[in-house]
Amino acid sequence: MKTLKVVKIGGNIIDNDADLTSFLKEFANLKGPKILVHGGGKLATELANKMNIPVKMVEGRRITDADTLEIITMVYAGKVNKKIVAQLQSFGCNSVGFTGADGNTVIAKKRPISTIDYGFVGDIIKVDISISNLLLNSNITNVFSAISHDKKGQLLNTNADTIASELAIAFSKLYKVELYYCFEKNGVLTNIENNDSVIEQINQKTYQELKETGIINEGMIPKLDNCFYALEKDVSKVCIGKSNMLFNAESKFTTILN
Amino acid sequence: MKTLKVVKIGGNIIDNDADLTSFLKEFANLKGPKILVHGGGKLATELANKMNIPVKMVEGRRITDADTLEIITMVYAGKVNKKIVAQLQSFGCNSVGFTGADGNTVIAKKRPISTIDYGFVGDIIKVDISISNLLLNSNITNVFSAISHDKKGQLLNTNADTIASELAIAFSKLYKVELYYCFEKNGVLTNIENNDSVIEQINQKTYQELKETGIINEGMIPKLDNCFYALEKDVSKVCIGKSNMLFNAESKFTTILN
Repeated sequence: MKTLKVVKIGGNIIDNDADLTSFLKEFANLKGPKILVHGGGKLATELANKMNIPVKMVEGRRITDADTLEIITMVYAGKVNKKIVAQLQSFGCNSVGFTGADGNTVIAKKRPISTIDYGFVGDIIKVDISISNLLLNSNITNVFSAISHDKKGQLLNTNADTIASELAIAFSKLYKVELYYCFEKNGVLTNIENNDSVIEQINQKTYQELKETGIINEGMIPKLDNCFYALEKDVSKVCIGKSNMLFNAESKFTTILN
Repeated sequence: MKTLKVVKIGGNIIDNDADLTSFLKEFANLKGPKILVHGGGKLATELANKMNIPVKMVEGRRITDADTLEIITMVYAGKVNKKIVAQLQSFGCNSVGFTGADGNTVIAKKRPISTIDYGFVGDIIKVDISISNLLLNSNITNVFSAISHDKKGQLLNTNADTIASELAIAFSKLYKVELYYCFEKNGVLTNIENNDSVIEQINQKTYQELKETGIINEGMIPKLDNCFYALEKDVSKVCIGKSNMLFNAESKFTTILN
């Protein structure tokens, strides 16, 4: 089985033009089939501010109303996605940009209204990788923005981490999939203040211990639950850390293993 | 040789949600491989106004400065392209959205500064249809927004009519290509005031006569020159008219033939 790398990048890379370019230059040179997943970092909020569209929050969660969805579509699928594709081309990496609507790849359901109406937020119900894989087989890197659709004409805002893990899971039938979550820290840390305190490996057993001792808490728990979910669904390896974990054999990062 | 339809839609369809939806519903049902090319209609100007970005005109021509290019990328490749793709999916027409950067399909050169600096406007130098055709062969409709790239990381604004004709020409090596320019009128008219005065066929000889008598003038001349250029480069047929020319055998429109 061939190895496929699914790489999710976060705001720390997207928000800075120079960082994005230097990341893409190295990413373009990664051997083998690869998929990049991105959101829009702070750029969507910046555009909303320029257009005087208020950011709606309920209980600390951002609400995707119609205006916000339009901004997300313009920023994620337009500005950021096409900037990435054009730069990858300049580095000799042929690529095609996707939303979940393209190729009918990521189908979601609008989140039902419970105590909170999240608006146009989609929970993934199906991933169809046939078109994406057709392109991978022709050496075309896929660049996914964090947008899904409901197959009824509605685009939906979907978490980029989830899109990355669901793509990784779907591709695990065809490839040995490695899933990389790039973020601003070197990995899962024993001491959040110390970027050198990287836990190099976490498995189900040590994860329970780290939760019990409180070393892993709050924000990190849904992220790691998502990683273990991917592993249970046959993704071969999940890594968390700075993007240099992909390019530099010396760099420290966290590997999550079943 | 299979027939491929390349269809360019203009602002009159894009600017109105109901018109766009009813067009896409019929377009989705067109048999055979097909490509849709679109710009952004008035939506780019609307967004520029909302963001207080002035529209720069020099000698009646719009200038694409960096801010304007960003708006065009967001509106054409984001908002409009993804709306079209999501709606086509809802009508059972599997599609993938493209800019010229995706699949390295439309490569252009920034227009040199002469008396006017047009800014980030690209004149096409090469069209590579290999990825686009790979998708067509898998029954995936291609939806192109009017953006090209220079292969050095720069996106460029390129006229949608030109993208449509250059795609049509490039595909003429593989298909019998029909190129349809949809606009607000029923076709080329002998009397601009009378939408029924459609000239049903124009060839090189009658075109010269129509120009000499002044029946075809100004705005229509570059459009028709573009059509004849496509025919010279082996496009089999070029049609101009309302979009119903694609769906309704009774409708009148203009066919341009060599």
